[in-house]
Amino acid sequence: MKWCRFDTGNGPSYGIIEGDTVVQVEGTPFGDYSKTERTQPLGSTKLLVPVIPPTFYAAGINYPEHVTWAANMRGEEPNLPTKADVGYRAINALVAQDEPIVVPKDATEQVQYEGELVVVIGKECRNVTQDEALDYVLGYTIGNDVSERTWQRGDRTLWRAKNTDTFKPMGPWIVTGLNPDDFHVRIILSGRVVGEYDVKSAIFGVREYISEMSRYMTLVPGDVLWMGTDGATENMKDGDVVEVEISDIGTLRNAVAWEK
Amino acid sequence: MKWCRFDTGNGPSYGIIEGDTVVQVEGTPFGDYSKTERTQPLGSTKLLVPVIPPTFYAAGINYPEHVTWAANMRGEEPNLPTKADVGYRAINALVAQDEPIVVPKDATEQVQYEGELVVVIGKECRNVTQDEALDYVLGYTIGNDVSERTWQRGDRTLWRAKNTDTFKPMGPWIVTGLNPDDFHVRIILSGRVVGEYDVKSAIFGVREYISEMSRYMTLVPGDVLWMGTDGATENMKDGDVVEVEISDIGTLRNAVAWEK
Repeated sequence: MKWCRFDTGNGPSYGIIEGDTVVQVEGTPFGDYSKTERTQPLGSTKLLVPVIPPTFYAAGINYPEHVTWAANMRGEEPNLPTKADVGYRAINALVAQDEPIVVPKDATEQVQYEGELVVVIGKECRNVTQDEALDYVLGYTIGNDVSERTWQRGDRTLWRAKNTDTFKPMGPWIVTGLNPDDFHVRIILSGRVVGEYDVKSAIFGVREYISEMSRYMTLVPGDVLWMGTDGATENMKDGDVVEVEISDIGTLRNAVAWEK
Repeated sequence: MKWCRFDTGNGPSYGIIEGDTVVQVEGTPFGDYSKTERTQPLGSTKLLVPVIPPTFYAAGINYPEHVTWAANMRGEEPNLPTKADVGYRAINALVAQDEPIVVPKDATEQVQYEGELVVVIGKECRNVTQDEALDYVLGYTIGNDVSERTWQRGDRTLWRAKNTDTFKPMGPWIVTGLNPDDFHVRIILSGRVVGEYDVKSAIFGVREYISEMSRYMTLVPGDVLWMGTDGATENMKDGDVVEVEISDIGTLRNAVAWEK
């Protein structure tokens, strides 16, 4: 099943996508819901960020090639994480399918994409095993963890490097019933494939993260977990279009616009 | 004016505290509201976390004595921050007045309080000057940034060190119309004053943080900014009661319970 959130012209609503049609739903994917009689073509629907998470988790460095690449850039030895420590991103930075990534004037040219699998939590969970973890997942969507690398290296925290307004595209929709071990990610920058990887090459997988996080924190419906990216990343220029494609989910697409 | 959020027995509601009475309100402090005829004694009211923030910001290290103390603990030279870089905390960890801080079994004895001023944003703001910043503040409340110091030093991020469930007491209410330069903070551990400081001794004040953050991110109604703590902190033991008192706001009080 394919869940979206969209602008009805009269406020946001959840919807279910059936072929090329969006069926408006009363309720949410996290509780009771029913389909309404209201439908509209997907092509003319203004999609919104598919969920506004209560807490926005991000695995950060979680793929061996990306860790190695980032360490080489800093002239350091790669240091693979030994535990599934999780980080955070911020709500203000979220934008939806086809909304622009707006880069502030004072950013350097080192503004880069990171194409990632996003896990959407469906049910409250605390202290779950790895075997149980996927029972608490509603489904999967796609994220682009846009990062200004000079700020990432120089600031004390990741606030503006990762959380400047528009730096967290997420969408276009949430797909249920899929196996995270099957996902293949491709990142396409203005028509050129600039990276691809299998989600199952992560250092810590979805089950490990959820189980480990739930030892200390209650995950609640709508929380999202961004799983990190693999490989090298490149700068994005004004006018570029960046697409993150994940098999069986779809393609998240955003243009890049530098503030004038 | 003193705003609270409380359990009506039939879901949460905002209320206005007048003397010893809570007046239930329709609406929220962030938009239109009206007082209802429903009132109840403050003493028998179950107070909730006064706001669930869309984004939960924390200044982190922001007072000179605390920076110096923390550096000395690590055997390092103190390194004062040169910019108002902001960090994040997580919703799952919030608890209200009189709710216990529950320490996981695998924590060390180094679980410590950090008593802090909390700024509550009242209006959407982006790109505001320091002179304008306080116009976007609804009011102030109190936070206790409970921290497990071994996890804080050893983990890659602050996830469980700072954001284990119950590690972020906030409340008891939000007070409007006050000047942040006037606040004096005292931390009381089981009846003993263990720390006190003036909020105006912060390295970066409320106006500087809001102005700097708003250069990159849109702050929205209900966002909170925890301003950091000053001075040394001590371990809390099972059965301790920790109180954070801020002049003209009130006292945030929570017991400490170690998981058996």
